[in-house]
Amino acid sequence: MIRAANTRLEGHVRRTPLLNSSFIDDIAGRRVWVKPECLQHTGSFKFRGAWSALSALDPEVRKSGVIAFSSGNHAQGVALAAKMHGVPSVIVMPADSPVLKIENTRAYGAEVVLYDRDTESREEIGARLSEERGLTLIKPFDEPQVIAGQGTCGLEIAAQATEQGIEKADVIVCCGGGGLTSGIALALEADAPGLRARPVEPEGFDDVARSLRSGEIERNKKTSGNICDAIITPQSGDITFPIMYRLCGPGLVISEQEALQAMGHAFNRLKVVAEPGGAAALAAALYRRDQIEGDDVIVTISGGNVDAPMFIRALETLT
Amino acid sequence: MIRAANTRLEGHVRRTPLLNSSFIDDIAGRRVWVKPECLQHTGSFKFRGAWSALSALDPEVRKSGVIAFSSGNHAQGVALAAKMHGVPSVIVMPADSPVLKIENTRAYGAEVVLYDRDTESREEIGARLSEERGLTLIKPFDEPQVIAGQGTCGLEIAAQATEQGIEKADVIVCCGGGGLTSGIALALEADAPGLRARPVEPEGFDDVARSLRSGEIERNKKTSGNICDAIITPQSGDITFPIMYRLCGPGLVISEQEALQAMGHAFNRLKVVAEPGGAAALAAALYRRDQIEGDDVIVTISGGNVDAPMFIRALETLT
Repeated sequence: MIRAANTRLEGHVRRTPLLNSSFIDDIAGRRVWVKPECLQHTGSFKFRGAWSALSALDPEVRKSGVIAFSSGNHAQGVALAAKMHGVPSVIVMPADSPVLKIENTRAYGAEVVLYDRDTESREEIGARLSEERGLTLIKPFDEPQVIAGQGTCGLEIAAQATEQGIEKADVIVCCGGGGLTSGIALALEADAPGLRARPVEPEGFDDVARSLRSGEIERNKKTSGNICDAIITPQSGDITFPIMYRLCGPGLVISEQEALQAMGHAFNRLKVVAEPGGAAALAAALYRRDQIEGDDVIVTISGGNVDAPMFIRALETLT
Repeated sequence: MIRAANTRLEGHVRRTPLLNSSFIDDIAGRRVWVKPECLQHTGSFKFRGAWSALSALDPEVRKSGVIAFSSGNHAQGVALAAKMHGVPSVIVMPADSPVLKIENTRAYGAEVVLYDRDTESREEIGARLSEERGLTLIKPFDEPQVIAGQGTCGLEIAAQATEQGIEKADVIVCCGGGGLTSGIALALEADAPGLRARPVEPEGFDDVARSLRSGEIERNKKTSGNICDAIITPQSGDITFPIMYRLCGPGLVISEQEALQAMGHAFNRLKVVAEPGGAAALAAALYRRDQIEGDDVIVTISGGNVDAPMFIRALETLT
């Protein structure tokens, strides 16, 4: 499925490069290779899964349009992928979402439907709209075609690692629901079995790290209150978790401050813009060196959708 | 020479992608394609020319080492290219250069020789060291192998434009001494004759724009005092100017404020870090739309070596 998704993505997705810097290597104590998916369309890897899911739909079904619940990177990925397919998209967002996020999602061509978090259910709104208009729901991570799309990032990592002569390394992946992590893990299993995916999460939201230890899906106590908002989810998925449990190495956990510092180093040394959640894997490479094995480590920067005030906080860690 | 340089650069240079964003297109009034050389090794295109020049040297000559005068992007490009060739490099820098630039140049493996701008001549120091140690001078722009190296960026632009179906467009190039501009112009002449290079400079430092009008090499009155420091040079070169005069469209001129705003948009929409001089071409695409022709425009982001306080100034233009 990942290879089929890769064929469908050809000519539409950006093949992001693999970056490195000797300055970052010095901090990490090994060679660090960075896959900057912040350079992907809409500023995150989510476009891969959205394109994969949309392009896999029956054209007759797709024509009626798609729907997603998200105020974040998945919303933008689905909106743009729908626009590029020439079909309508509806994104259901909380009414208190930042105006910029609402405007951006609209600018990618989506119809934004706002709901009141306290009095309305987004599922009910979504079910009603889907029925009325024949919209297909695109889930953010626990959906095979979405996982297959994210897995194309893993195919690229496998090929780029081979080019660099890297046969054995940890591949650290910023992990929310596990769509990117499980997709990459599957791709590596097939194309680069010496590479091992490892999820990274923020402190207090380490459900996947705990799940990998306990062998069952654990939940987070909180579902908000961390700057790494892009990778905060209540729990991993019924499809994503078993893949991660079978293939991934132990989870890593980083602090908000470490995410900010990693954003600063990505600015200073790699010249890319990472959002806090997107910088989690780089933070793990820089600040969890004793928990990583080998001479090389590969990290994803999963997204770069960060506003200026938060980025200034990251820049302030450099001094 | 550009094709030969391209072969020598194979496997050593980063092939930077071509980025775009519908948000930027909307401001510019046409499709804008961005070549982010800030993602190149050492954070600027200068690595291309440095590698080209070093790799073209006779191995016996190269073994003794190379020397450059620069406190900026050329210094870092030469230092890293020398390190990767396993040969020594000496960079002659003013003693009052920012400590970070000195440290970075050293970290790339160079021996930094500091001189007093008021009482010493860098040329004399350079001549003495070159004679004593047999070092070869790598000039920043007016040197055929350096121009050939920068031209490899033009070969990539030509190929990437063809992939996107772009047959006719202005290619706006951030221009100091004209190494990148002339190299790209030559590459486009060969591989994409419908694309036309156009230099962009900051207000008050528009010697190339004036030279293209008058037909002879003009000088700038000032040689400092602009945030676009990477593209401030007294005048273009005896080799670069005739190439630009034969091949380039009219020069463009942008303000410091426009460079900062373009940096902000590059952050917000492309997720890359541009330095002020590196953002000049994007600024021209955004704010000189009446001086540009066609449905598409291609711009270089020539470098991303900017410190946090200056970047914060750019972020502040977004609000």
